[in-house]
Amino acid sequence: MLSFPGGRPPTPGTVGELGEFGLIRELTSRLTATPAVKLGPGDDAAVVAAPDRRVVASTDVLLEGRHFRRDWSTAYDVGRKAAAQNLADIAAMGAAPTALLLGLVLPADLHATWPVELMDGLRDECDVAGAAVVGGDIVRGETITLAITALGDLRGREAVTRAGARPGDVVAVTGWLGWSAAGYAILQRGFRSPRAFVEAHRRPEPPYHAGPAAVALGATAMTDVSDGLIADLRHIATASKVCIDLRTEAFDVPAQMHDIGQAVGVDPLQWVLTGGEDHAIVATFPPDRKLPARWRVVGEVRHPSAVSRVTVNGASWQDGGGWDHFRGES
Amino acid sequence: MLSFPGGRPPTPGTVGELGEFGLIRELTSRLTATPAVKLGPGDDAAVVAAPDRRVVASTDVLLEGRHFRRDWSTAYDVGRKAAAQNLADIAAMGAAPTALLLGLVLPADLHATWPVELMDGLRDECDVAGAAVVGGDIVRGETITLAITALGDLRGREAVTRAGARPGDVVAVTGWLGWSAAGYAILQRGFRSPRAFVEAHRRPEPPYHAGPAAVALGATAMTDVSDGLIADLRHIATASKVCIDLRTEAFDVPAQMHDIGQAVGVDPLQWVLTGGEDHAIVATFPPDRKLPARWRVVGEVRHPSAVSRVTVNGASWQDGGGWDHFRGES
Repeated sequence: MLSFPGGRPPTPGTVGELGEFGLIRELTSRLTATPAVKLGPGDDAAVVAAPDRRVVASTDVLLEGRHFRRDWSTAYDVGRKAAAQNLADIAAMGAAPTALLLGLVLPADLHATWPVELMDGLRDECDVAGAAVVGGDIVRGETITLAITALGDLRGREAVTRAGARPGDVVAVTGWLGWSAAGYAILQRGFRSPRAFVEAHRRPEPPYHAGPAAVALGATAMTDVSDGLIADLRHIATASKVCIDLRTEAFDVPAQMHDIGQAVGVDPLQWVLTGGEDHAIVATFPPDRKLPARWRVVGEVRHPSAVSRVTVNGASWQDGGGWDHFRGES
Repeated sequence: MLSFPGGRPPTPGTVGELGEFGLIRELTSRLTATPAVKLGPGDDAAVVAAPDRRVVASTDVLLEGRHFRRDWSTAYDVGRKAAAQNLADIAAMGAAPTALLLGLVLPADLHATWPVELMDGLRDECDVAGAAVVGGDIVRGETITLAITALGDLRGREAVTRAGARPGDVVAVTGWLGWSAAGYAILQRGFRSPRAFVEAHRRPEPPYHAGPAAVALGATAMTDVSDGLIADLRHIATASKVCIDLRTEAFDVPAQMHDIGQAVGVDPLQWVLTGGEDHAIVATFPPDRKLPARWRVVGEVRHPSAVSRVTVNGASWQDGGGWDHFRGES
């Protein structure tokens, strides 16, 4: 079993039966450290190396029913995804992820296997990104809630914000686009395949190394694609006071995504342009910069008009919205 | 009004009407920065100075109904208390608090004044501790939930863990003890006074500077009193593999606390020894150390017996439990 790599048996009983301190013992016993962890879980606070003399920090909250479903994703996958989402924010600043802290709300009648597998997922995704879980807090409540804070180190580089894009820059993206949204569409219709897209929805694979690499390539602005490419580029356009135009022919929509789109009656470009949660990294670069093959140039930065718009082939995308957590699709 | 220091009018409408981005704009517009804030809210992540090359980090989760009540505390007080609780963890490592991140779950029908006042409280408590709110995340959910991560800097000092207490050390405490518990007892019985104790429950005043100061005084182990003195000293006893004995005559129980105890039928020493949430700082020091008057010596560290116990006048305290979030009072 993926989630019990050492052949370790699942924890017996519920969260309530194990108790707060029993559960904390069980969870922390599964963690691994990195050289950056100067003091791990178990004290008032953790101590993490910050060799750059600056620390990059980001917090995200995920609720059951809203951000994940236990019938669609295993606890392990929820852990992988929750960690990935936050670690990608660190990478998108140009920093190397170092640590993760977890605030966890759990119902007392939840089987303890769930948080144990969740922790395995968090740990393994941290491993991929070079980070470690260093601390957290667990309280009892009705709705499973994960509050994750990721930390990172800039290693002497300047942080790349959303505010530095300049007219003439190219827009380039690396990582997956639309895969999670296609997987979500499949699950929503009660199917479980094609597996590659369902897996992409359950467990995104952000290109962590691309963030720091983009700084070396001269990125002028950068973000990860969490709400959808158009929505996240709109943040760059607004912060940089520019317009951005995407070219649809620049995207390489896989044949299988076309097939799924046809089956469910959705233009797959919709997923590519507005689907979030794959945590691709999108950045703007000076036009003369030679980018490695992993980066795909998909548009360009233009002089600002009255509003900082993001257009597709020069026009508004019909449904170019992002997600507003209080209002729903905008 | 305390919570609108600039005479600024309250935000109209509900959280849902304001929307996620409107609310974020409203909340971040109220924040102040410190020189340690290299990049504040609004990007993928914040950037905070960590001159020591290590960062101290701690996360706490607070739920409405479990950790605070809206009929007992204003949003402003909840913010003050939530920040205090986390910033005290940083101080208890011997570090200076630098930054705070906020994960926030809010019902859509909540009036937007609530999170706005909450943010004012968080900001003002950060001010007291020398820190600043640098980022966060807001999502919609049923139960108001605060997930707070505090960061701090050790300024070249060694972190003081719970594990360094040695037989012969003295146990000393600074800050308030039992005031929050007395205030809670008052509120629980439907009263609102004496005001000093109710205020202490609503808005603790951790002695932030005492943490770093204790390092200079040679503290061997340290923690903040969040679950109750005996419970938190038990963490030190366990981590340090020692026993700790407290002397009741060393505590200075205020006359007014005696009066309240008599009125509600509780030995006020119970509040002093087992009441949490005042976030006093307790530390162990070598016996030869001359401590400033703000520190009160209340016990001593003894050689370990079979179990790492905390005793009071050499005996078990009849109700020396702490709080287990899944099991209730232990």
